[in-house]
Amino acid sequence: MASNSFGTIFRITTWGESHGKAIGVVIDGCPAGLELSEEDINDALALRRPGRQVFISTRKEPDLAEILSGTFEGKTTGTPISILIKNQDPDRTAYEPIKHHLRPGHAQFTYLEKYGIFDPYGGGRSSGRETACRVAAGAIAKKLLAHFEIEIVSYICSLGGIPTSPPLFEQFSEFKSQVLKSPLFCPDPSASSQMLQLLEQTKQEKDSLGAIIETQVHSLPSGLGDPIYEKLEANLAKAMLSIPATKGFEIGSGFLAAGMKGSSHNDLFYLDENKDVKTRTNNAGGTLGGISTGMPLVFKVAFKPTSSIQKTQETLTNNKEASLLELPENSRHDPCIAIRAVPVIEAMTALVLIDAILMHRCSKI
Amino acid sequence: MASNSFGTIFRITTWGESHGKAIGVVIDGCPAGLELSEEDINDALALRRPGRQVFISTRKEPDLAEILSGTFEGKTTGTPISILIKNQDPDRTAYEPIKHHLRPGHAQFTYLEKYGIFDPYGGGRSSGRETACRVAAGAIAKKLLAHFEIEIVSYICSLGGIPTSPPLFEQFSEFKSQVLKSPLFCPDPSASSQMLQLLEQTKQEKDSLGAIIETQVHSLPSGLGDPIYEKLEANLAKAMLSIPATKGFEIGSGFLAAGMKGSSHNDLFYLDENKDVKTRTNNAGGTLGGISTGMPLVFKVAFKPTSSIQKTQETLTNNKEASLLELPENSRHDPCIAIRAVPVIEAMTALVLIDAILMHRCSKI
Amino acid sequence: MASNSFGTIFRITTWGESHGKAIGVVIDGCPAGLELSEEDINDALALRRPGRQVFISTRKEPDLAEILSGTFEGKTTGTPISILIKNQDPDRTAYEPIKHHLRPGHAQFTYLEKYGIFDPYGGGRSSGRETACRVAAGAIAKKLLAHFEIEIVSYICSLGGIPTSPPLFEQFSEFKSQVLKSPLFCPDPSASSQMLQLLEQTKQEKDSLGAIIETQVHSLPSGLGDPIYEKLEANLAKAMLSIPATKGFEIGSGFLAAGMKGSSHNDLFYLDENKDVKTRTNNAGGTLGGISTGMPLVFKVAFKPTSSIQKTQETLTNNKEASLLELPENSRHDPCIAIRAVPVIEAMTALVLIDAILMHRCSKI
Amino acid sequence: MASNSFGTIFRITTWGESHGKAIGVVIDGCPAGLELSEEDINDALALRRPGRQVFISTRKEPDLAEILSGTFEGKTTGTPISILIKNQDPDRTAYEPIKHHLRPGHAQFTYLEKYGIFDPYGGGRSSGRETACRVAAGAIAKKLLAHFEIEIVSYICSLGGIPTSPPLFEQFSEFKSQVLKSPLFCPDPSASSQMLQLLEQTKQEKDSLGAIIETQVHSLPSGLGDPIYEKLEANLAKAMLSIPATKGFEIGSGFLAAGMKGSSHNDLFYLDENKDVKTRTNNAGGTLGGISTGMPLVFKVAFKPTSSIQKTQETLTNNKEASLLELPENSRHDPCIAIRAVPVIEAMTALVLIDAILMHRCSKI
Repeated sequence: MASNSFGTIFRITTWGESHGKAIGVVIDGCPAGLELSEEDINDALALRRPGRQVFISTRKEPDLAEILSGTFEGKTTGTPISILIKNQDPDRTAYEPIKHHLRPGHAQFTYLEKYGIFDPYGGGRSSGRETACRVAAGAIAKKLLAHFEIEIVSYICSLGGIPTSPPLFEQFSEFKSQVLKSPLFCPDPSASSQMLQLLEQTKQEKDSLGAIIETQVHSLPSGLGDPIYEKLEANLAKAMLSIPATKGFEIGSGFLAAGMKGSSHNDLFYLDENKDVKTRTNNAGGTLGGISTGMPLVFKVAFKPTSSIQKTQETLTNNKEASLLELPENSRHDPCIAIRAVPVIEAMTALVLIDAILMHRCSKI
Repeated sequence: MASNSFGTIFRITTWGESHGKAIGVVIDGCPAGLELSEEDINDALALRRPGRQVFISTRKEPDLAEILSGTFEGKTTGTPISILIKNQDPDRTAYEPIKHHLRPGHAQFTYLEKYGIFDPYGGGRSSGRETACRVAAGAIAKKLLAHFEIEIVSYICSLGGIPTSPPLFEQFSEFKSQVLKSPLFCPDPSASSQMLQLLEQTKQEKDSLGAIIETQVHSLPSGLGDPIYEKLEANLAKAMLSIPATKGFEIGSGFLAAGMKGSSHNDLFYLDENKDVKTRTNNAGGTLGGISTGMPLVFKVAFKPTSSIQKTQETLTNNKEASLLELPENSRHDPCIAIRAVPVIEAMTALVLIDAILMHRCSKI
Repeated sequence: MASNSFGTIFRITTWGESHGKAIGVVIDGCPAGLELSEEDINDALALRRPGRQVFISTRKEPDLAEILSGTFEGKTTGTPISILIKNQDPDRTAYEPIKHHLRPGHAQFTYLEKYGIFDPYGGGRSSGRETACRVAAGAIAKKLLAHFEIEIVSYICSLGGIPTSPPLFEQFSEFKSQVLKSPLFCPDPSASSQMLQLLEQTKQEKDSLGAIIETQVHSLPSGLGDPIYEKLEANLAKAMLSIPATKGFEIGSGFLAAGMKGSSHNDLFYLDENKDVKTRTNNAGGTLGGISTGMPLVFKVAFKPTSSIQKTQETLTNNKEASLLELPENSRHDPCIAIRAVPVIEAMTALVLIDAILMHRCSKI
Repeated sequence: MASNSFGTIFRITTWGESHGKAIGVVIDGCPAGLELSEEDINDALALRRPGRQVFISTRKEPDLAEILSGTFEGKTTGTPISILIKNQDPDRTAYEPIKHHLRPGHAQFTYLEKYGIFDPYGGGRSSGRETACRVAAGAIAKKLLAHFEIEIVSYICSLGGIPTSPPLFEQFSEFKSQVLKSPLFCPDPSASSQMLQLLEQTKQEKDSLGAIIETQVHSLPSGLGDPIYEKLEANLAKAMLSIPATKGFEIGSGFLAAGMKGSSHNDLFYLDENKDVKTRTNNAGGTLGGISTGMPLVFKVAFKPTSSIQKTQETLTNNKEASLLELPENSRHDPCIAIRAVPVIEAMTALVLIDAILMHRCSKI
């Protein structure tokens, strides 16, 4: 089943395994006339690059994107944009000793069940490496959103149980720059340093941590999203749960809503100073009935701790024999995969939103 | 934008407003050869019927489904199945006094922003009534799943903050029948009676409550679901967040995963007595990399409290004038909308799973 | 496989068998704000009604469409429009004697091969009756096109080998009204009367005739249609070959192009008096590279003779026994099915074009 | 609008311009377990290679395909297969003198109207070069069909008005090898040599020729294809009209059907020596009601003469000024583009059929 595409009008298709020659993405349906360069893509890729800081795996891939089609004289032409990212570092030897082991928490077993094939190297298609393609495509979507003055920020709002209390910022740009300053995408410097400490300690324990990422979208116009099965939050939920290692999604009040009363949950309508309709609270998280209200879009995504840990684990081989799994010393894994997922979440958010914006052009006669 | 369809191979399209002549659903792509009668549909509809018990709104709609096409001599033929449910009770007078008010927590405002049209009656297309069509279509999907011996149960696992502690059941059928015995779809009799009390009290306070629903799927084979963007959990998340009043979705360990360590979160593989691969825990919730593991599928959905409450609320009219909203005495609203949503969640789950089962037929040569 | 839908943004789903209770169509993605009444639909249905004239089958179905959803105060709301047409005349007795016969040229055999089910009555889903739903949906699409001042005319351009030589008309409206005056949708009165004579004679010979229908679309703007796989002519070809009894499609010069030289086939560009780019000829038929040029869209569709004929034919039963097939005296069949297909072709053309118009809104930033 | 993909279960997405760095295709949904090598792709590409013989343009592109993903140890894994073909020969200087001219019969004008961008070089995305990607993807589809013992042959059945009378072959393989022997894919040696002569003469006249290609599919099982809008012939028609330079499609009796009577057009059912249901004639061309009958699939496609001719032509520039167009001496164009389209038609046929075969797996319970 063709399952490697995302979006309807603005549609991406990704391909490539973590240990093959290259990975890539084709973006189809990008409107003509957008200024676009390889730098735009590479700047975005740099944010999820391994090696950006100590707590993401130490592979030294430059992740340089090449645009192979779809632009002319620096602008998009309306034809498909093909982006290729070479894999520089397909060292398979590290995995030889464990090439027949089912790794707990990994998808090798389910791929084997589905396809009858066992690819022992680096997770193949299920590897987090595929998300580089999402970030590349998302960079284009974000440029389009910027054209419409819509801004996205994602940040770590809890890591290993440590909560983030971001200070109040007057400007979105300040908030965004504070997030980017932190190696953990965490706008709360004190929480950030606690998290760094916990990460260091967890790494030494050969273990890993989970986290929660919050996303906010500002200046989103009202009326975006479609009723019933293409609700904005439904498409966001799908987008988020398609990211490896995610375990949950909530919008606005989320799971807390289940314990609230209607009289406190309902967001009351009022007119602001510009005579625009606003709500006094935003428990909705920016949508009603699947369509944007004009209030900020706010949602959270839960990540499990990285599955690959250096600790010895009981498991089976692909021949169904009990065995112990010990990852090689030099195997490369982030102690908290969620950190690198921050730009991925921004990218997927941008893809959902640009599709909704384009579709909205067809809602009235 | 065409947004009223769900599914790829087994695809439903719903239509109809809560206060129009009828609502309905077309099921396209149902395999030929399934025994199907109107009773199958109506039995399913009975579970979400208003009036089934005191805490769901008191409209006396019999919700009788008519099958207009797609069967021959009691079996599906492979052609589209059209189901029509007449609206018996389109009394608009109750809404006259508030026909220009934006109701807090409702989608009238966003539909107005999107389409430039304000339908004052009963929520129009965004009404929960649309979910009757999902239940009707889901009844067919569930018959197909039963054919493959796959069983679904959804139940209230928390309501107004009261948690459910279901006793252990040896058999799935016992569990299921315990759930169906409760007017609240709650398998824990003691929690159930506490919830009933709280519902009564909340109703008198003219307020409403939220809840969390858990779903378990048993006997699901491994290998279902597709990689990357059509992951089983991604499609479930989308399905769930497309249901009105939902605020969150989590699978397996869900948001708790964010606070766990890899060494406790990873589900270790072992061989059971039948030499089948199982995992010792099920934090994954039944999938790895978007594909089913063969362990039970387990996920939760959060519902906000019913938006329509009898308490007076500040709001605006659709002319942007400040006004107080007082719902008419005789307006009909559930104090906890989540109760009626239990069969809807089962239906949407069945729709996601049958599509995955059919698609899986194409995964190998 | 879900195969009963057509279109992407403006998407229809049809359902219903010729001998069931009703047939119907759901139109999803119609923009909000279009004035629409049941009369609009019924006027369109009247043109394909059996009994409009002598040479189409004599069933007296009024074919009255009911709009069950999707409009409010006479305008479309952006939500799905459900149209239901009751079957008034499901007399099955006529078919009893031949209920086990495979009818030559009919789809009963292939449906049996596909689904393992043999529906002996009236063609079931493969019956031409399904096209009433296309005409109903097409009526809405045509209203939208009229809003954009785009006009479609289809007419019989050859029947039973008799060619049509339409006189030159100065105005599109004259041409259109001349077509509608003819019981055969033939704008050439002399050819029309020859055809009527041939139809009478063929009917007495218990035989049937084929025909070719030409379609012209005027005032279509340039730039519609999408490159590569969603070319305007590709979608038109699919739309046309999805109509029962069609055997071919050609655009512009069509099959004649195969015998021409480039120097005579190429349409040379020039500026007309309004400084618009036009071509001196229109061998292209209104598109280049799948995108409209602004010249009239012109294409032809070939129809086979009606398969159901009164003449005795050798065949098999569904038990694979050789047998003679003699259709009952009172069975109802058009001597030339193409005549009733004229409004169906206009409808399918309108559906393709409105989808292209809506999609075109997303081509530039 | 995303328009560069084809197929539903087995889905291809192509990208790349004729004068860019590379072109490519991503094949998503290919079942796991098919043996596949780069040689399989390159053998197929060799058949449409320029330079295979004198009458196709003389660019010396080796067209070497690289498989970048989707296989493991020589077999497909179920994940997307990315194929890249480098453009070796992007010489733009030849086009400099005419870079502002609208070329008659070309899509530059319509792309400009659609996207507001004028790409003067080599046709950009609308160039026939895109079809190399179809052939590459089709090579995989054909390997799958071969696995199911289904065989396709396409051949020139008329060129510049010269008809082909293929001798009768006892075996499909003989027929196929006769077609491949001819530089024109023409199984009739005498017609073939006449055509070669005409091509030579036309080239000297600086002109070009059209042609008709017939396709036959043997050993296709009955039951493939879906009712109503996904009819086999509808999807074939769309596939064929998506190929550049096509003007028409007909199946079985095609446009001739319009002049036939039902009594001669109807294909009568009988039992063959193996007790299989067959028809005595095959006017249907292998389908009834959109579903395969088990008889050979037979259809024809009409190609216009190559638009690019050396003869001087009147035209406009993209600034709307009248001008003469003279293609440079060294510009490279086939005198009959249809010849190179033969493998493209086989490829598109294979893509339609493999999708129908996979979908058919979902038709029964």
